[in-house]
Parts: sequence; structure tokens; C-alpha cells
Amino acid sequence: MAQSTAHKPELPDKEEHRAHVLSLPLERGQSDREPHSYERWLIHKLMRMAGSPPIRFRLWNGDVIEPEVQDARFTLHLTDHKALYSLVANPNLAFGDLYAAGRLEIDGDLPDLMESLYRAVHAARQKWPRWLDALWRNHNPRATGISEAKENIHHHYDLGNAFYQLWLDEAEMQYTCAYYEQADNTLEQAQLAKLEHVCRKLRLKPGMTVVEAGCGWGGLARYMARHYGVKVHSYNISLEQLAYARAEAERQGLDNLVTYVEDDYRNIEGQYDAFVSIGMLEHVGKDNYPALSELIKRSLKPNGIALLHSIGRNRPMLMNAWIEKRIFPGAYPPSIGEFMEICEHSDFSVLDVENLRLHYAQTLTHWMDNFTANQDQVTEMYDEHFTRAWRLYLAGSIAAFRAGSLQLFQVVFTHGDNNQLPQSRQELYTFTATPEGV
Amino acid sequence: MAQSTAHKPELPDKEEHRAHVLSLPLERGQSDREPHSYERWLIHKLMRMAGSPPIRFRLWNGDVIEPEVQDARFTLHLTDHKALYSLVANPNLAFGDLYAAGRLEIDGDLPDLMESLYRAVHAARQKWPRWLDALWRNHNPRATGISEAKENIHHHYDLGNAFYQLWLDEAEMQYTCAYYEQADNTLEQAQLAKLEHVCRKLRLKPGMTVVEAGCGWGGLARYMARHYGVKVHSYNISLEQLAYARAEAERQGLDNLVTYVEDDYRNIEGQYDAFVSIGMLEHVGKDNYPALSELIKRSLKPNGIALLHSIGRNRPMLMNAWIEKRIFPGAYPPSIGEFMEICEHSDFSVLDVENLRLHYAQTLTHWMDNFTANQDQVTEMYDEHFTRAWRLYLAGSIAAFRAGSLQLFQVVFTHGDNNQLPQSRQELYTFTATPEGV
Repeated sequence: MAQSTAHKPELPDKEEHRAHVLSLPLERGQSDREPHSYERWLIHKLMRMAGSPPIRFRLWNGDVIEPEVQDARFTLHLTDHKALYSLVANPNLAFGDLYAAGRLEIDGDLPDLMESLYRAVHAARQKWPRWLDALWRNHNPRATGISEAKENIHHHYDLGNAFYQLWLDEAEMQYTCAYYEQADNTLEQAQLAKLEHVCRKLRLKPGMTVVEAGCGWGGLARYMARHYGVKVHSYNISLEQLAYARAEAERQGLDNLVTYVEDDYRNIEGQYDAFVSIGMLEHVGKDNYPALSELIKRSLKPNGIALLHSIGRNRPMLMNAWIEKRIFPGAYPPSIGEFMEICEHSDFSVLDVENLRLHYAQTLTHWMDNFTANQDQVTEMYDEHFTRAWRLYLAGSIAAFRAGSLQLFQVVFTHGDNNQLPQSRQELYTFTATPEGV
Repeated sequence: MAQSTAHKPELPDKEEHRAHVLSLPLERGQSDREPHSYERWLIHKLMRMAGSPPIRFRLWNGDVIEPEVQDARFTLHLTDHKALYSLVANPNLAFGDLYAAGRLEIDGDLPDLMESLYRAVHAARQKWPRWLDALWRNHNPRATGISEAKENIHHHYDLGNAFYQLWLDEAEMQYTCAYYEQADNTLEQAQLAKLEHVCRKLRLKPGMTVVEAGCGWGGLARYMARHYGVKVHSYNISLEQLAYARAEAERQGLDNLVTYVEDDYRNIEGQYDAFVSIGMLEHVGKDNYPALSELIKRSLKPNGIALLHSIGRNRPMLMNAWIEKRIFPGAYPPSIGEFMEICEHSDFSVLDVENLRLHYAQTLTHWMDNFTANQDQVTEMYDEHFTRAWRLYLAGSIAAFRAGSLQLFQVVFTHGDNNQLPQSRQELYTFTATPEGV
């Protein structure tokens, strides 16, 4: 599609992003000593603590250690003995860093391995002694105040539009969970169906006004304007994304209806018929939920509808250390119970919660297919370490949604005293949300 | 319909239920002294604390006190000066007791008055001084252990099937929120549509097994067996309801598929494809949520689906004192945040939350219409105080759902690691859930 090349910004500084993704020194391929017997013992112990997943280890000298309980389906190759100690000391962080650095190699399907590992660890960790839980714990996400949020968002979303164009959908470059009405929908179909599904949940009518907190490359705002004739104000602090979003709105002749505002969502002004935020809440931080709640309270007209779409959890849990440190600084996906602080604080009434967990696994699988097909280009843009880190991040995310470690919630709510409610959810399903011929 | 007369148990002892509903001595109609000037001041103060609702007072001597802020739409008549002091000291409890005793009379539509009052108080209470909040607070619900639960349930649900038959739907005697696909559906249609909607959410298929915690008069179990060919075990501790449910299942030839078990839900045994509970959670009590969670965990097959349907809140709040004391001992409607303790405790994954708040207002309006049409019979069965108490309870409930003080949640969830999930919610809406010709 034409718009995918509408705006090609300069690539960001390679070194800057390499520094983000990888801070461990490279020690790959150096010649190493023979493994000690207590190192074999340590691997057995490590695997038992991880719930005995079907993984064999190949050590730096070629020795193989088979799993004790079940046949191996994957091989994990450690290229040096120090990698083993990093893994044992802090597996949540080291697994990713070692993989990115090429000091940990995988034979077998990466999402499958990660899913096996997540499922095994999820069951096993209930029985960990307290000292191990403390040793291997993840950390609180970093701060998400206005100045930190800029840093956090720049780190991830300003990697360059050209990079994201390599593997996101072409139509609207949506970097959030798609909606697969049918299992065999394409990524393009499912991403447009998601926009349609969100618009229907918001019960948009021509002439209404919408405010969007965090707009990515601006696809939802343009879709709303194009298909529902509404006026949209979309807030974002990612400069790369805003540049693309504005160029696209202008190219499509929608800049009379859509305004992209370069500002933090906390500075939203005015009152609207709908408040929507797709995939921003993960970056808001729990401490800011009461303030977000008050913001929505004052931004939503008396009969307005709000929709927040966010990655979540079945119960409160810290983000994986590697993801929080290397990929998504400040990220914290809430459980519904935690999410409810936003609703309860302002006496909002929740109308609808939908969980699209497996839709995100499928979205990520499509992304990873595209990413893999273009990985040489990614390596050319950045370097091998970057490519490996992102491959692991995508594979690990597929696995987390498949294993149920992550959820995807769409929550619809209104002011508590609003009685202008839809009779039922029937209208969301009157005809297919998936466009034909895409 | 024939089944409404299939089982007519004896009426329960009048005195027993009168004692439950009304404990204040009657002082109606006695001649009273002139009001003092500080009593007028007290009424103005009371109304200001209640957010200045559009209510005028007529005192025991015929004097009228108009509201200060807006024109009156309702008249509240106090028949004696002691009624005023009861009202000021503990309005949550006294309003109901005085109305039931005929010491407080209302001119104007009772649900409308209650809605005005709830909305006014809801806004005003944010500004109450702490001492007033403490004085007028509701109390923790009474205990809901196995022995207390029997008492609590007997108090309300064993009032006599003949009583409930006067105003519930004829087809299945459902004493829970109906589902109005269209605003003009009848109560009969909407109650059957609710059963259909619940069955669809559970994705029932012939041959599946279902366990139901708290089954009322057993309508859902029979509907599931009749329309979906599933085997159902339904638990209940209300003897009156069980007698009716069993007679109906036998009469309809469904007793090979439906088993009604006289036992507390806590004693559920076996594993099932579906766990369902409609309108019981309100009686479970927050302290018992972890145990309920563990019960569902062990009762649900690996790919099973659970659905809990319950009255709820936008945020944690104690039940109105009069309702808890006179109508529903032990009742506590949870917020979604509180509800989530059931889900988070066992790592369940919430798939779907739907709020049917205004459907319950409509259900209650239909019930109240039937109740009003049959109120002479009710008074004949019990007495005038019982009729007045129940009229206020129904009117107050309509008002609470309209004003947003109460919500109605249907929550669907599965084990956290279950990946056999429906692709979307589309199937719930493929064709109408409302039966024709009812």
C-alpha cells in the first residue's frame, strides 16, 4: 500500500539503541575450559526449579545434559561457563541478555520453547523457597512521570518508522493486538477489524468528538474520521510516530477531522463523547491510575463512553525484568483488579470487559513471521544483537499470551450516573467487522 | 402457564415473617403535639445533608415544609414526631421501618422518589463531616457460614412459593435479572432470553455436564437440559424452592438430566464442563471468596467455563442497613475489584464481563407492576406491614439500579491455562435469544 512509504524518517543512531538493548560485554566464541561437575549439578538444579521443562543443555565444550523428567524437545546451548552463572543468578534478565549476545543459542522453535518454559516455571514457582523467590524476583518498573515517560517512550517507539514498517500491518501500522473474527484472517484484516470493533464499542455517530490518549501511528484516529465522521484529538509523545501520523492524515485529506497533539496524555483538555486509549495503559504506571481516572472523569461528557485497551494479567505480577529493562522501560500490565482502581476512583460504571488474549498471540505470530522475513534488513539497520533481542521479545510475547502469563483486556465504561446506555452488545455483531478484499 | 400451579406449598407462618420484616412498635395515627421550631430546623438540616432532593415534608399536625433549593416533586408525610427522630438518627434503617409501619407515607411515584433521593445523597455524602458518616453508616453484613447461610436463605427464599408466583415470571419463576434484548420485551420473554444468553456464554453442547450453585426454583437447570441436552447438578438450601424445582423437573420429564441437590454450594463434588451461579454470590460474603474460588478451581474441568451472575457495585460499599436487616440478611454485592479476588486467587482468566444494570431496573419494574396488581392477596397472605416493606424493597431496588448505586455483572472465566477458547463473542449474537410467542 502506498502510505507505507509516505514518510521515511532518518534512522535513529545505531549506537544509542544498541546501548539500550544490550549492555553485557560480548564473550561469545572464546575458548573455554571444561565444565566442572558442580556446574552439571547446577544445571539439573536450575531445571528442577524451572519445573523440569523439556530442554536439554549443550555446554561450551560440546557436552550434553539431558532433562531428567521428560524427553527434550529443545536444545539450549551455552557458549561459555560465565553464561551459566549469569543464568543461575538472575534468569529473568540474563536469559534475554545472553540470547541477544549470542551466548545462549536455541535449537527448536523459539516461541514453542518459551511457552514450555513459561508453563513449567508458572507451575513450579508456587513451590520455590522464599530465598529463591527473592533472588529471582523481577523489579518494580521505573518511574513514569512526565519527564521519564518521554524517555521511556522514546526508547521503544522512536526506533524508526522504517523499522516498524518492516513487520507491522501496511494499512495503518498498528502496534497493538488485532481482532481475528475468524481464525484464518490475515494481519491486515484483523487490524482493521480491531479498529472497527473499537469504534462499535464506543457507539460512534457522525459529528461526535473523540479524544485519544497515545495514538501510535495514528491509525485509529484516521479510521474513526474516515468511517464514522467524528472529530478526533489524538495525544502522543513519540515524535517519530506523530510525524508519520500527521503526514498520513494530510495525504488522506483527513486533517480537518483529525488533530495529532504532541503532548503527554495528562495534558488533555476539553470534553468529548468518547475517550479511547489503545495500548497506552501498560506505560502509565499504577501510581498514576488515580490521576488518569480523574482525567477521564473531566474529559468525558455526561453520556460519553470510555474504552481502555491494555495488556494485562490474571493477577498482579511484575513485568519480566529483561522486557522492562531492555524493551519496554516503565511497563506494567495490570490485573483487572488493579485496573479497577481507575474505574472505582471516579465511580465509573464498567459496561463490558473482553479478553483478547489469543488474538494477541496470533497478532504477534504474524508480526514475527514478517520480522523473520525481513531480519537481514533489521540487522543492516541496527546490528545482530538488536535483531536477536527483538526476535526473543516477539517470541517471548507469543509464548506469554499462549501460556496465559499475559492477557489483553478491552474495558468499556461510562460515568456512574449515565443511563443513556446501549440496550445490549448485539450491535457489535450485526455484521462482520472484517473488511473484504484486504 | 400450567407449571405455575404445579406445586402449592403451605404458606409459612405469618408471625415468623412479620417478625423478620418489622420490629418497630406501631405508633401510627396517635394524636401528637405541635412541632417545635427546632424540629423544622432539623428537617431543613436533614434535607441539606441528603443533597436537597425535591421533597416536601408534611408533619404530624398537617404543617408543610417546602424544600429550599428546588420545587418539590414528592411529599413525605411523617405521622408522629418520634418518626422524625428515628429518621435523623439512622435514616438508612428508619426510612424502611417507618414506611413499612405506615409512619412515613409518600405522595408521588415511589421508585421515582427513591431514585431522586439516591442521586441526591450519592452526590452529597462526599461532603459529609466524618461524624455524620459514622452516625449514618451501614453495618457489615452478618455472617454467611454454613449454618448462618441456612438462616439467611430461609428468611427470604422460603416465604412461600405461592407468594413469589404472584409476581415473578410464570414460565420459570426466576428471581434474578432478566435480559431485555429489545426495550419492549415482556418479562416472560426477557427471563427466557436471560437463560438462553447464559447458556450461550457457557458454550453448552449436548452431553456436557454443568454444576449450578444456588438454583432458585430450578429454571436454568431445566432450560439447559431441555434446550441443550446437558446434565445438570443444581445445589440449593432453600427447601421451598427445591420442592418446586423437583416437581417441575419430574412433570417435564427432565429428571433424568437434572438433579437438584439439597446442600450448601460448599459441598459441591465432581468435575464439570461448566460452573454456573445466578444470583447467589450476593449471599456468599467476601470472607468466603477464596474458598469459593478454590471450589470452582476443583469443580471445573480443564477446558470448562464458569459464569457468575451477581448484583454488584461500582466501588466497595456496604449494603443499605434496612435491606440487610429486614430483607436480605448477609447480603453484600461486590465491586468488580472485590469480585476479582475470586478470579485472581485461583489464576482464572476472565474472558467477559457484561453489566446489565438497566435490565435489572426493568425486571424490577415488571415485578413491581405484578406485585402491585396482586397486593391485596399479599396482604391477605401476610399483613399490611409485609406488603409495605416489600413494596419499598422493590421500589428502592428499581431506584438503586436506575441511579447507578447497584450494578448487575455477568462474569465469564476459565482456568488460566485453557487455550480452548471461543474465537469471539459473535456466536452469542448470531440469532435472537428472545423466544417468539411468549
